[in-house]
Amino acid sequence: MADKNKRRRADADSDNRPFKSKLKPDAVILQTLKTLKSSAAASKTLTLSDVGLSSTCREVADLPIDEVQSEIESLAYRIASSILSGEGFSFSVPSRSAANQLYVSELDRIVLKDKSSVRNFGNVSTVRKATITLRILQLVHQLCTSNIHVTKRDLFYTDVKLFQDQTQSDGVLDDISCIVGCTRSSLNVVAAEKGVVVGRLMFSDNGDMIDCTKMGMGGKAIPPNIDRVGDMQSDALYILLVEKDAAFMRLSEDRFYNRFPCIIVTAKGQPDVATRLFLRKMKMELNLPVLALVDSDPYGLKILSVYGCGSKNMSYDSGNLTTPDIKWLGIRPSDLDKYKIPEQCRLPMTEQDIKTGKDLLEEDFVKKNPAWVEELNLMVKTKQKAEIQALSSFGFQYLSEVYLPLKLQEQDWL
Amino acid sequence: MADKNKRRRADADSDNRPFKSKLKPDAVILQTLKTLKSSAAASKTLTLSDVGLSSTCREVADLPIDEVQSEIESLAYRIASSILSGEGFSFSVPSRSAANQLYVSELDRIVLKDKSSVRNFGNVSTVRKATITLRILQLVHQLCTSNIHVTKRDLFYTDVKLFQDQTQSDGVLDDISCIVGCTRSSLNVVAAEKGVVVGRLMFSDNGDMIDCTKMGMGGKAIPPNIDRVGDMQSDALYILLVEKDAAFMRLSEDRFYNRFPCIIVTAKGQPDVATRLFLRKMKMELNLPVLALVDSDPYGLKILSVYGCGSKNMSYDSGNLTTPDIKWLGIRPSDLDKYKIPEQCRLPMTEQDIKTGKDLLEEDFVKKNPAWVEELNLMVKTKQKAEIQALSSFGFQYLSEVYLPLKLQEQDWL
Repeated sequence: MADKNKRRRADADSDNRPFKSKLKPDAVILQTLKTLKSSAAASKTLTLSDVGLSSTCREVADLPIDEVQSEIESLAYRIASSILSGEGFSFSVPSRSAANQLYVSELDRIVLKDKSSVRNFGNVSTVRKATITLRILQLVHQLCTSNIHVTKRDLFYTDVKLFQDQTQSDGVLDDISCIVGCTRSSLNVVAAEKGVVVGRLMFSDNGDMIDCTKMGMGGKAIPPNIDRVGDMQSDALYILLVEKDAAFMRLSEDRFYNRFPCIIVTAKGQPDVATRLFLRKMKMELNLPVLALVDSDPYGLKILSVYGCGSKNMSYDSGNLTTPDIKWLGIRPSDLDKYKIPEQCRLPMTEQDIKTGKDLLEEDFVKKNPAWVEELNLMVKTKQKAEIQALSSFGFQYLSEVYLPLKLQEQDWL
Repeated sequence: MADKNKRRRADADSDNRPFKSKLKPDAVILQTLKTLKSSAAASKTLTLSDVGLSSTCREVADLPIDEVQSEIESLAYRIASSILSGEGFSFSVPSRSAANQLYVSELDRIVLKDKSSVRNFGNVSTVRKATITLRILQLVHQLCTSNIHVTKRDLFYTDVKLFQDQTQSDGVLDDISCIVGCTRSSLNVVAAEKGVVVGRLMFSDNGDMIDCTKMGMGGKAIPPNIDRVGDMQSDALYILLVEKDAAFMRLSEDRFYNRFPCIIVTAKGQPDVATRLFLRKMKMELNLPVLALVDSDPYGLKILSVYGCGSKNMSYDSGNLTTPDIKWLGIRPSDLDKYKIPEQCRLPMTEQDIKTGKDLLEEDFVKKNPAWVEELNLMVKTKQKAEIQALSSFGFQYLSEVYLPLKLQEQDWL
């Protein structure tokens, strides 16, 4: 059988690969990474109160399950006493609309302002939503007492007659996060998992200790419930956040994480909540810098921004979902010429791509970083994009053996 | 912190759950499963030669990398000598068209017949494809010598100028599988991974030993390259093949695999090649019966059929990709009434659903199993479908605590 010890020789074209000769010994590159790591460990993540916004903006927090339960119970007591005093009941629900969102540049993420609306049971226009809210509070309370995790889809199916369609129960679930002041995962409602992780990381998943250096090429599936993830330990110097599965596979098979100690993580495209939470937890607990490897197109940068600054429809939870200070390692628009990516491996941008690129140029989180603006301007100007896989034109292992080591050596991140 | 030992009490409505009272002690159910396991171990998987078709049908095999390499090298010698003798060169390429496919009921899968066509370099209509074929043979040979795995996307990017678009390199790659007579994974070209596995299984992935009982709730990502998977060991009594992620999560969190020893696997929807190969390998090496838990809709049955009989466009590889004798455990159309799934949790079938259902009734692999035909007829007649999650209407853990145990107890699979 074929096994990892059997690689007979490197690609035939090893020596002709562009920039191969520029590579310094690994020890030199490792020194660079150690410096990067200590600077990341020294930087502090700001909170709403640090920037004086804690009274005008709201945020949810990861709460232990007992606290969620008692929060729901005290809400129930308030409702009961309101009813007993002849006043019916209502909820005060934080608004999650765009008008109530704010990008805070000091925090480099989108947060929710403090506008709320009243959801009254005794009003014909809000009675349905108030009923759904109460029902979902009851279901979440049940999740707390039995301490199990379910998906949003499971929740919907417990009372299809009332919820009618899943967007209704999903929306109210987000409302309840804001009302209780906790994250959706604290409510024990989790999203389907998509991400995988491999490399120099150990952590516990639901009580089992996982060693991510011993996960073969497939990696470990990122658990859907972050509250059962703990005990993170690592001797990595950085986290490598990869957009695509194919690049993850290449790096995993080549055990890139052993040559330049790192943790490699991917959500296989659009970041899901579980992967975002996992990345943030790693960054926070291990104090590691995060370097992102995404396609050189507007969506690559967009994906980077979701990890970094959050998505608009979950802005109330941006504090828990976002990972500050992600560096854009590659593939950057300027890399296309710099690394002499052949013309035929570049793709023309579509009208939609160009529009998305121009829209991104208007976004605060891009504008904040002049070097990113410059890269994005270059992309829109040249109207060219390229996938990570375009590097395969120099040999399948060019990514792991030349491009990434050189990027790290040159500290070529923004 | 919340942990698995902290479940304080079962769902409040435990005792009212329908059919809960019908459940016998676990030991009785385990005895049923042991009988199922021994009957699965006794059954033999037929091959083309068993049914006298080995001369008129063709199949590919999993070949070790050295054999793939020497096969390509002897092909190159033949081409060179053909050129030297002044005759140019051509490939004989097995046809993969629908007209060359055959459903063999004894094998219960789709196979490829023996028609071939000539792809001549000296002919203006085939020169392009012959060139692409030669180029991909060269690239695969390079993969053999360095013994690394790449994706189809990587392959495309090595020569965009020639391939023009990925469908062309993908198609020729399948041709090369047929020419060389090996599976696509034997060519070291793998698909992106999607599946996860959890439960009573140990296996090695790229040299690392994986214990799937210690993978928390997230499970282990199924490796993209089956040839680096080995040393499978298990004390499971059956394999539970699950269509959806949410059901997988429920069973994984509840550690269902410890109560009724099994291996739980899902491809999260449409089965990908890696998961299909992995399932087959488990079935073959461990001699375990496979029970499928899919949605009660035409797509659920379609997914089951892809695992069982293969997809049409990869019929040349059906022998390696398919898992024989998968039992349809649930959710079956007859379960909707039997388990009293509330009306509001059933969904009306769309016109397209009904058409897909009727098309399935014409398929050989459905017709072969009269009990399946009956179920499918019922679905099309009632025009109702339901997802696995519909069981959540009886409580989130109804699936793992009542529905599945009862199904196993009653040997209610088809």
